[in-house]
Amino acid sequence: MNSTKPHEFPSNWGRWGDNDELGAVNLITDEARARGAAEARTGVTVSLARVTTPFPLTGGPLGKTSTTNTAVQTMMLFTGHAAPAMAEVLVVTTHHAEVTHLDAMGHWVAGGKVYPGVDAADSSGPAGVRHGAAEVYGDGILTRGVLLDLAPDGRLAPAHPVTGADLDAAADRAGVETLPGDAIVVRGGWDRVYGSDEPEPGLTVDAIHWIHDHGVAVYAGDIGDARPPLPGEMPGALHFLALGRLAIPLVDATEPEALAAMCRRLGRWTFQFVIAAPRIAGTTGLPVNPLAVF
Amino acid sequence: MNSTKPHEFPSNWGRWGDNDELGAVNLITDEARARGAAEARTGVTVSLARVTTPFPLTGGPLGKTSTTNTAVQTMMLFTGHAAPAMAEVLVVTTHHAEVTHLDAMGHWVAGGKVYPGVDAADSSGPAGVRHGAAEVYGDGILTRGVLLDLAPDGRLAPAHPVTGADLDAAADRAGVETLPGDAIVVRGGWDRVYGSDEPEPGLTVDAIHWIHDHGVAVYAGDIGDARPPLPGEMPGALHFLALGRLAIPLVDATEPEALAAMCRRLGRWTFQFVIAAPRIAGTTGLPVNPLAVF
Amino acid sequence: MNSTKPHEFPSNWGRWGDNDELGAVNLITDEARARGAAEARTGVTVSLARVTTPFPLTGGPLGKTSTTNTAVQTMMLFTGHAAPAMAEVLVVTTHHAEVTHLDAMGHWVAGGKVYPGVDAADSSGPAGVRHGAAEVYGDGILTRGVLLDLAPDGRLAPAHPVTGADLDAAADRAGVETLPGDAIVVRGGWDRVYGSDEPEPGLTVDAIHWIHDHGVAVYAGDIGDARPPLPGEMPGALHFLALGRLAIPLVDATEPEALAAMCRRLGRWTFQFVIAAPRIAGTTGLPVNPLAVF
Amino acid sequence: MNSTKPHEFPSNWGRWGDNDELGAVNLITDEARARGAAEARTGVTVSLARVTTPFPLTGGPLGKTSTTNTAVQTMMLFTGHAAPAMAEVLVVTTHHAEVTHLDAMGHWVAGGKVYPGVDAADSSGPAGVRHGAAEVYGDGILTRGVLLDLAPDGRLAPAHPVTGADLDAAADRAGVETLPGDAIVVRGGWDRVYGSDEPEPGLTVDAIHWIHDHGVAVYAGDIGDARPPLPGEMPGALHFLALGRLAIPLVDATEPEALAAMCRRLGRWTFQFVIAAPRIAGTTGLPVNPLAVF
Repeated sequence: MNSTKPHEFPSNWGRWGDNDELGAVNLITDEARARGAAEARTGVTVSLARVTTPFPLTGGPLGKTSTTNTAVQTMMLFTGHAAPAMAEVLVVTTHHAEVTHLDAMGHWVAGGKVYPGVDAADSSGPAGVRHGAAEVYGDGILTRGVLLDLAPDGRLAPAHPVTGADLDAAADRAGVETLPGDAIVVRGGWDRVYGSDEPEPGLTVDAIHWIHDHGVAVYAGDIGDARPPLPGEMPGALHFLALGRLAIPLVDATEPEALAAMCRRLGRWTFQFVIAAPRIAGTTGLPVNPLAVF
Repeated sequence: MNSTKPHEFPSNWGRWGDNDELGAVNLITDEARARGAAEARTGVTVSLARVTTPFPLTGGPLGKTSTTNTAVQTMMLFTGHAAPAMAEVLVVTTHHAEVTHLDAMGHWVAGGKVYPGVDAADSSGPAGVRHGAAEVYGDGILTRGVLLDLAPDGRLAPAHPVTGADLDAAADRAGVETLPGDAIVVRGGWDRVYGSDEPEPGLTVDAIHWIHDHGVAVYAGDIGDARPPLPGEMPGALHFLALGRLAIPLVDATEPEALAAMCRRLGRWTFQFVIAAPRIAGTTGLPVNPLAVF
Repeated sequence: MNSTKPHEFPSNWGRWGDNDELGAVNLITDEARARGAAEARTGVTVSLARVTTPFPLTGGPLGKTSTTNTAVQTMMLFTGHAAPAMAEVLVVTTHHAEVTHLDAMGHWVAGGKVYPGVDAADSSGPAGVRHGAAEVYGDGILTRGVLLDLAPDGRLAPAHPVTGADLDAAADRAGVETLPGDAIVVRGGWDRVYGSDEPEPGLTVDAIHWIHDHGVAVYAGDIGDARPPLPGEMPGALHFLALGRLAIPLVDATEPEALAAMCRRLGRWTFQFVIAAPRIAGTTGLPVNPLAVF
Repeated sequence: MNSTKPHEFPSNWGRWGDNDELGAVNLITDEARARGAAEARTGVTVSLARVTTPFPLTGGPLGKTSTTNTAVQTMMLFTGHAAPAMAEVLVVTTHHAEVTHLDAMGHWVAGGKVYPGVDAADSSGPAGVRHGAAEVYGDGILTRGVLLDLAPDGRLAPAHPVTGADLDAAADRAGVETLPGDAIVVRGGWDRVYGSDEPEPGLTVDAIHWIHDHGVAVYAGDIGDARPPLPGEMPGALHFLALGRLAIPLVDATEPEALAAMCRRLGRWTFQFVIAAPRIAGTTGLPVNPLAVF
C-alpha cells in the first residue's frame, strides 16, 4: 500500500525541465498518441462535458431572473435596428465548479511557486498568466482514454474515500489496464452541483499515488476533491498533489454519464480521448468539451 | 457552370424537417463519420484556430494598455489575501472577426426567419437563443476533413473572387475528391485581421454552388465573405447562402497555416476533422478549436 | 378633467428645437434653479436612491451564490501577489428595475424615432447612443424638488390608478404648489422589487396630463408604470407619454422613504433636488443617486 | 515647516472609533455643512468630473475598434426584434486612472490592515468589501468646497513638487481660508491621461501635512500622486498618507477646468460641494460626478 503522507508525496517538478508548461501531458508519447488514434473506429463521439446554461447578465425586464448564478452569463447584443444576425457576449468564470473546464499549471500556487518552480509573481499578474497557461495545450490533447466507473450500478456512497483499490477494481471490471500517457475518466455517479448538502465522495492521497504509478497524463472526473473534505483524509488531494505536484492537468466537473452508457452498450471501456480548448492565451483554465471517440 | 443568381440559389430549408437545428451536419452519415475516424492514424493533432490574446478588461494601472480590442478580454480575480490559486473571468465576443468561432443556425436571420423557417422572435430573445443554438453540436462534430489550399505557394491575390473552379483546382492538386458529409478547410493564405486595408479575396456565389453540389457539411476557412465585398459579386455570399440557405455551419476565422504545412509534409490532404465546442447553451456561436487529426 | 385618450396627448417634440437633447430639463430656468438653491439651508442631504447590493459575477467557490440577479455585479480584481490596494470591476445594467437610474431621451423609441424626431438608426447603434444620451445632463441637474406623498400613512392600495386628483391631494396636504421647472418625487410607498406578485399602483394618463400641466422638469418615483398594467388604463403611460412625448427624464426606482420621514419631521415638503450622474458618455441611462438637500 | 518624514506622519486611525468607515468626512460638522449649503445661491452647477467615453465591449464588426481601453466599456443590448427601447450594460473599472472616482477606506491596505485597523481579510474578499465601502457615503457628501488653483495662468511645471506653501499661495490668491470640514479642489492644470510621457506634478508629504493641518474632509484634484514619482519625494504620498493614514476620501482624476473658469468669472473660489455616488454597496470605489453649486 502506498504512503498517504503528503510530505512524502512524489513530485514531477523538474522532470521535464525547469521551464516546462505541459506537465504530465509529456507522458503522451508517440506510442500513446497512436494508441489513442487507433481507438477511433466508427467516429461516434460522446461529450464528457456538462451543459452550462447561461443566465442573462442583465436581469430585470430584459431577461428571466435566475435563482442561481452560473459559470457563464450571456448578453444578446443589439446588432442594428433591423438585425440581420444575432450575436452575444459571454462572461465566463473559468474555474466555476459547475462548468467542465481544464485546470492548467498556472492555476495552482504552492508555497508561492507555480510548477515547476516559477515564482507566482513571474507566473501571473493582473493582465493574465505568463507561465503555465491553458493555451500550452492549444494544439489539442489526444491520447487513449479509459473509463474507470467506480459505481457501475449507480453512484458512490456519500463521503466515500476513493482509493487506489477502487480504481483497480474499476479497471478490473472493465478488463483494461491503464497505461502511461492515458487519460482517465473517473465516474462516481455524482452530479457536482455546487453547494448541495450531501457530502461528496472524493479522492484520497492513496488514489493520487495510483494515478502517479500508472502514469496518468490527464485526469477527468465527475468527482475529485470532496466537498466537504473527507473525514481523516487530506483535503484537496487532487488539486494539491495531482495538479500541484504531479503536474497533471485536471478536467474539473466532467459529466461521464453518456460515456458510461456508451461503454456499457459497446462493452468497450477505452476510446480516443481528445481535448480541444478554445485558443485563448494567458488563462489559468478554459472551458472544454472533452470528447470520447469510438 | 452554375447559376450565380442569388434568387435561384438552392435551399435546404425543410430538407431535414421543420424543426431541424443541425443543418448540413445531417450530411455526416455513419459512413462519412467512419471515413473521418479512419483518418486518425498517428494521433498527431493540428489546431485550425487562431490564438486569441485577451487584453485586460481593466486597463489603467492594473494592466497594460492594449492598442486594439480583441475577441476576448480577461480579468484576473482576487482569490484571497494569500491566493492559493489563480483564476479569471473571460468576456468573449462570440462572433468577433478575429476569433475562430462556429456560426450556428440561430446566428442568421433571413427575412425575419431563422433556418428552417422559425420566426426570429421565436428563435431568440434577450435571454438567448431557443432555436438553432451552437450547443446542438454539443456532442461534437467528427467527419473527414479536406484541405483545399487555394494558394499553395503563398496567398491569393487581393480581391480574388474564389469560384468553384478554384476549389476544383485545389482538390485536383491534392488528388482528393470532396465527398458528401466532408468538412472543407479552405486556405487562401490570408490572415483575417479586422480592419486592415487590403481588399480580401472571398467566395463567390459560384463557389457556394460548388459547396452545395459536393454536400459539404461544415465550412472552415481563413477566407469567406470578402471585406470589402468583391466587385460585381454578391456581398456576404457565404453567410447569406451557405449559412442562411444551405444551413452549413461556418467556422469563421480559421487559421490553416499549420495544417497546410503538415499536409505538405505528409503529402496527405485529408484528416479526421473534429469540433468540440464548449457546451454553453443558448448561443448563436461559440469559440472553437477545430482539430485535424492525422 | 383632462382627456385620457393617448392619441390626443400633448407633445414637446420640437418645443426646444429639432436637435434638443435635454427635453423638459429646459424648463429649469434661472428662476427655477435659484428657487432650488434657496432650499439648501442646513446642508443635510437625503438620498433618493435604493441601495443596490451587487452579487459576485463569479459564483462558485469564489463568492457566495446569490438567489437573484441584480442590477450590478462585482468582481474583485487581483491586484498583485501582495495586494497594496483593492479594486473591482462593476457590471451595471443601466435600466434594471431595481436600481435607481435616469432614463435619458435616447432610451425611448416611438415609431422608429427618438425625441424630438431623430431616426432611431441615427440616435443609437451597437457602439452606443449618439443623440439623447444621459451625459447631456453631465453638468448636473439642480432645481427645486417637491415630495408628493400619495400615501402618508403607509402605501397605496395594490393596482391603485394614480390620477391628477391624487397628485393635487398630496400637494394640498403638503401645502405646496408645484411650479414649472420643479422636480417631483412621487411616493406610493411601494418597494419596486421586480417580479413580486402583487399588482402595483401606477400612473394613469390623467396623471401624466397633470405632470404636463404643472411643467414638471424631472419625474422621480417609487411608482411609475404599474406592473402588471392597470386594468382599463394605458399600459406604460409614464414611459410612453412623459418620457416619450413630454421628454421628461425619469428617475426609475426611486426610494423616497427616508425623504418622506425627513419631510414629516421638518414639516417641509420642498428641498434642493440635485442629480449628478457619473459622466459616462453615450448611454441611454445611468445609475444615479438623486439628493434632497435641506 | 512640517516634517517630511513619513514615519512621523500623523494618523487618524482610532480618532473616530475602532469601526469607523467615514474617515475625515466626520470633520463635516453641522456648521461645516451649513457653510456649504450657504454657498448655493443661483443654483448653477459645474461638474468636476471628466467625461468618460466608453468603447464598445464587443469590437469587430459590431463596433468601432478603439485604440485604447477606457474606464468604462459599453454593450448595447438586444431588447427585442422590434426594439421599443434601447438599453445597455456598462463594465466599469472603478479605479481606472482616467475616470473621476471616489476612493473609499476599503481601497487601501497598509501593513495588512484597512483604516482604522481592520484586518484586510475581514475588510474584503472575493465577493466585495465588508468594511470601508464607498456606499458609506451613500447619503451624499455636502460641504463647502474651495478651489485651490495652483496654476491660474496655465499649468504647473512638469514634476513640480507641490508643497504646503503652494497651497497657501493659491488660497491667498483666492482670498479664502480653508476651514475644517471643507473639501478642497486642487487644480494643477494637468489632464491625467494614463501613460503619457511627461512627468506629472504631484503632492509632497509637506502638502499632505498642510491638508491635515487644515482639517480637509475630502480631496479632489487633477493632480495627486505624480507619475513617475517626484524625484527625492515619497512616492504615492497622497494615497499612502492622506487616504491611508488621515482617512481622507480622495476623488481621483478630477477635472476642474470648468470650475476654474467659473470661479474666475464670478470672482468666487468657494461653492457648495456635493458628491452623490451611485448607491452600489460593497465596493472600494465608485465613479462620481462631484458638483460645485454656485
